[in-house]
This record gives sequence, C-alpha cells and structure tokens, in this order.
Amino acid sequence: MSETAQRRGRGRRPAGEVREGVLRAAADLLLSEGIKAVTFDRVASAAGSSKMTLYKWWPSAGALAAEAYFAHSEHQLEFPDTGDIRADLTAQLRSFVRLLTHEGERTREGTGSVLAGLIGVAQTDPELSAAFSEHYSAPRRALAVAAFEKARDRGQLRAGIDLGILVDQLWGACYNRLLIPDAPLTEDYAVALVNNALDGAAAR
Amino acid sequence: MSETAQRRGRGRRPAGEVREGVLRAAADLLLSEGIKAVTFDRVASAAGSSKMTLYKWWPSAGALAAEAYFAHSEHQLEFPDTGDIRADLTAQLRSFVRLLTHEGERTREGTGSVLAGLIGVAQTDPELSAAFSEHYSAPRRALAVAAFEKARDRGQLRAGIDLGILVDQLWGACYNRLLIPDAPLTEDYAVALVNNALDGAAAR
Repeated sequence: MSETAQRRGRGRRPAGEVREGVLRAAADLLLSEGIKAVTFDRVASAAGSSKMTLYKWWPSAGALAAEAYFAHSEHQLEFPDTGDIRADLTAQLRSFVRLLTHEGERTREGTGSVLAGLIGVAQTDPELSAAFSEHYSAPRRALAVAAFEKARDRGQLRAGIDLGILVDQLWGACYNRLLIPDAPLTEDYAVALVNNALDGAAAR
Repeated sequence: MSETAQRRGRGRRPAGEVREGVLRAAADLLLSEGIKAVTFDRVASAAGSSKMTLYKWWPSAGALAAEAYFAHSEHQLEFPDTGDIRADLTAQLRSFVRLLTHEGERTREGTGSVLAGLIGVAQTDPELSAAFSEHYSAPRRALAVAAFEKARDRGQLRAGIDLGILVDQLWGACYNRLLIPDAPLTEDYAVALVNNALDGAAAR
C-alpha cells in the first residue's frame, strides 16, 4: 500500500482539501437553510471533519459562513467599464438587484435573503462582521470608488465630491430596502437610483 | 380590606400597568446589554411577570424588544420645517447621526448599536421585522416623504422624481455605514450626504 493510500485509509486528507470541503458544506447549509443552520456542529458533520479543526480555522461559525458564501457564491465582483458611468452604474445596479431578488441556481429566493442573514448576524458577531468586510464589502467599495475616480477623470462626475458617499447612495440604498423592506427593491428602482444620485433631487 | 387592596395583595396588577412594566424591563435590558439579553425568561424575571403573560402579548422576544425600544427610547420622530428643505434635512440628518453615534442618557455607545442589533435580528425574526416597520421605519419614511412633498410644492425639489428614493439615499445611506462599517459615520458625512442627494454627482 502506498503512503498516500495509507494516509487516505486513515482518513487523513490534505489540509487544503479538508478546508475546501468544509467551505463547500457551509455554503450548502447557508444557501439551503439560511444562516442559523451554519453551526460548527452541523458543518463538521456535513463535511466529515472534526469540530476541533473548524474551531482552529475559524473564530466563529459566522466567520465561516461569510467566507464560505463568498468562496462559493454565484456572485461576481464585476464592474462594467464602457466609459459611460451612467450606463455602467445602471447595468451594475440592475444586475445587483436581480441577483438579490431573483431565484438563483442554488438560492430559491435570490441571494438577498442570504446576504441579509449574514449582515444581520454580523451585528452581534464581530468575527462575521470582520469577515464580511474583508471578503465582500470593502473590496466592492474599493472597486466602485475606482470606477468613480475614472469617471471623474473623464469629466463625468463633479470634482470635489466625496466618492465614498455615492457608494452608500447606490448600493447602500439597495441594502436599505433589502434589510428594512418598507418599499420594493426592483430593477426600475435601480435605474431611478442612479439617475437621482447623478442628477440630484433639487429643482434647478 | 377593599377589593382593590385585596387584588393588589394577591399580586394582581391592572393589565396596562403590567404591560408598561414589561416594556420598561425589556428596554432596560436592551439598552444595557443588547438585543441578545432580551429573552422572555429574563424580561419576565426582571418585570416580576409570568412568561405566559409575555407569550400572550408578544409573538417573539424580538417583537417585544422592538416595541420596548420605541416606547422608551430617547428618540423622537421630529422633522424640522423651516421652509428650507436643505437646512431642514441637514439638521435632521446631523441629529440622526449624533443619536446613532454619541453617548446617550441610557446608551453608552449611542443608539446605533441598539438599532443595529434590532435590524440584525429582524433578518431572521419576521415578528421583530414587522414590529420594527410598524413602530419605527414605516412612520419615519412617511414623515420624510411628507416633508419632501411640501418641499416639492414649494418648488425646492424637482417634480417627477420618486421621493421614496431620497429616503434610502439619506437615512438608508447612514444605515449602510452603521450596519456595514467600512467607512465612518459622522456629522460631516450627514452634511455631504444631503448636498450630494440634492445637487447630484454628475458634472454639469
């Protein structure tokens, strides 16, 4: 029997493979049953790993859920760049709303309920909050600001405005309707959001 | 012994009084220890009530927490109306940010962490979500839209824009920084938010 087979026979898989399997099991639980299903107990059992291994690698089940989500989500960090910031933002925000609200390959109610669950638990789980920021929200914010800077350099956005604010007034506005659902989150809303953020609400 | 005294002697308080005491106990727990401390067990014990009573009146501990918060918060639903929408919004948003971030009479870290906890739990507690909307977010949205309508009638906001969007681009933008803290939530931010929402980001 080869050494590899022996190791396999004793159930010793390479760490990278184990980690990958744990992340996949956590993503499956998250997408099918929601954030509350992602406990160290259930993930360890589904992945055929020991709970000790999970405790060693992740500071909380929430942090594991966040990392698993971004490692295995259908979601891509794409930002179209056609040179027309209004068209690019409209395309990006419409895709974002579609992803949040429409049925996906693995998520029946769209990614929205999963993201909302992650953000929800992040409010009382600092480890999840840090993982969410590191793996998702901070890089997305940086990508958007980079696109805004290019648009400003092309003369499409005003000089002197704080570009970080625009991120909150576009994606943050969508999150507001996702998390506090007093008003509908639709593609039409995404289109109107972009126009309002670019043109302003004040009469001229 | 009078009938009232007899009832008191047996510990039977009027329902309104019991309810008030439960809400106060729930608010105290929420403000001092956060949303996770608001369980039927702990509130019943702190209020000297039976858990059965709480189950009868509130569909979940989260719903009780939301109602308690809005019944006993320092927070007022005020919206200044000086006739100048830019000044009124700036004043309102600055107060809102101050309330979220500064130490209060009863909340050491500002109301922000309490509100964030309520919105967080609302993502997996439909009863809390409904109570939050009924007691807080929907009436606030309606007040803001009413102020916007008056400003539009005065000729300060463009006709034809969806005024609900402005709510997301002002208060929703603040919630975005509260819930996903990748960028700071300050009074300067509130001022810049209002100007950006009114003037737009596009170069002219």
